[in-house]
Amino acid sequence: MANSRWTAAAETPPVLLRRRGPVLERAILDAALEQLSTVGWGGLTMEGIAARAQTGKAAVYRRWPSKEDLVVDALQAGLPTLDEATDHGSIREDLFQLCRRVRDAMFSTSGFALRSVLYECDTSTAERFHGVIVRRVIEPSTQLFREVVCRGIARGDVRSNATHELVFDVIPGLMMYRSKMCGSEWPDEDIAEMIDQVMVPLLCPRTG
Amino acid sequence: MANSRWTAAAETPPVLLRRRGPVLERAILDAALEQLSTVGWGGLTMEGIAARAQTGKAAVYRRWPSKEDLVVDALQAGLPTLDEATDHGSIREDLFQLCRRVRDAMFSTSGFALRSVLYECDTSTAERFHGVIVRRVIEPSTQLFREVVCRGIARGDVRSNATHELVFDVIPGLMMYRSKMCGSEWPDEDIAEMIDQVMVPLLCPRTG
Repeated sequence: MANSRWTAAAETPPVLLRRRGPVLERAILDAALEQLSTVGWGGLTMEGIAARAQTGKAAVYRRWPSKEDLVVDALQAGLPTLDEATDHGSIREDLFQLCRRVRDAMFSTSGFALRSVLYECDTSTAERFHGVIVRRVIEPSTQLFREVVCRGIARGDVRSNATHELVFDVIPGLMMYRSKMCGSEWPDEDIAEMIDQVMVPLLCPRTG
Repeated sequence: MANSRWTAAAETPPVLLRRRGPVLERAILDAALEQLSTVGWGGLTMEGIAARAQTGKAAVYRRWPSKEDLVVDALQAGLPTLDEATDHGSIREDLFQLCRRVRDAMFSTSGFALRSVLYECDTSTAERFHGVIVRRVIEPSTQLFREVVCRGIARGDVRSNATHELVFDVIPGLMMYRSKMCGSEWPDEDIAEMIDQVMVPLLCPRTG
């Protein structure tokens, strides 16, 4: 008797949650980022995503014909929006707070997902993602660093000719390089060091 | 008759070159980098490497039990040695010439091979390569940038406190970021712009 009850329990099929439309779509998109951030692009499968979203494979394929299509939408929907850089009164504090947000985005589920795509995809597949990466990551972060630098110029703690686009790539470049080459997770003290040792000397007025 | 001659020609087996010891090993190591730079880590096979080296698979497996072992030795042997930074009389020219060498290394066969490993390998596999990457790429390039900066301090065209390790990572960071995110191939004019817009302001004396 005990045995048969146990057997019955063991045979219960996995629960598929009943959701429709946007709610189910959101669950699938979240599951795609979650899976991508853990198993990487190479390990990502539509089956795995469906299982993670507690739905059927058909429900996924009905909406997205391939994992490429699904991941483009998942990144589009899931990447954090870095929309404005608050004024904290000085270039040092503005950059520090902005870098902390960039760091938190890098190490979020969608940040890990993005890096799986950036690093693992061969060039032809990466092409599929280039648009969303430019629109959702490169352009917004460049725009925020430009905003902070221009505010510093107006404030007077940044030299007036520090507006070359290469200047806005220094922090993203250092953050990518050190996380990739040295496994740095950019704790606050490393961010502060980057600002004091690199960005302040780079940006402060020549006569400073 | 014509047909049979054509058939005979078509049936000729691929020529296996007769080489031994170091000569054959070098050919296999070169073939591994060549293959890695074209098909990437994901597409790399011992069969493909043997074919490329015009030898048998057994000759490869006899020396290296896995493609990981082979690639570690291939990178160790094939990565260009950046051993010294010549004095060109100014920090601008020293950095310009050094960056051109780094760019040429990045876009060499072994540079593309290295990037396949850096970008495609999952973390556990990448562990296998971390040592050779640190010894053959990160440490030597950091050392060369340090050498150039310290020479500038002695010369007087670099501020005396520009020796933080983060300063030495700015150029590698920008070069990796822009090649990865924007597909930049770092032509000479972009290198010159990076030096004039970023490195000279970052390094030149505060009172400059």
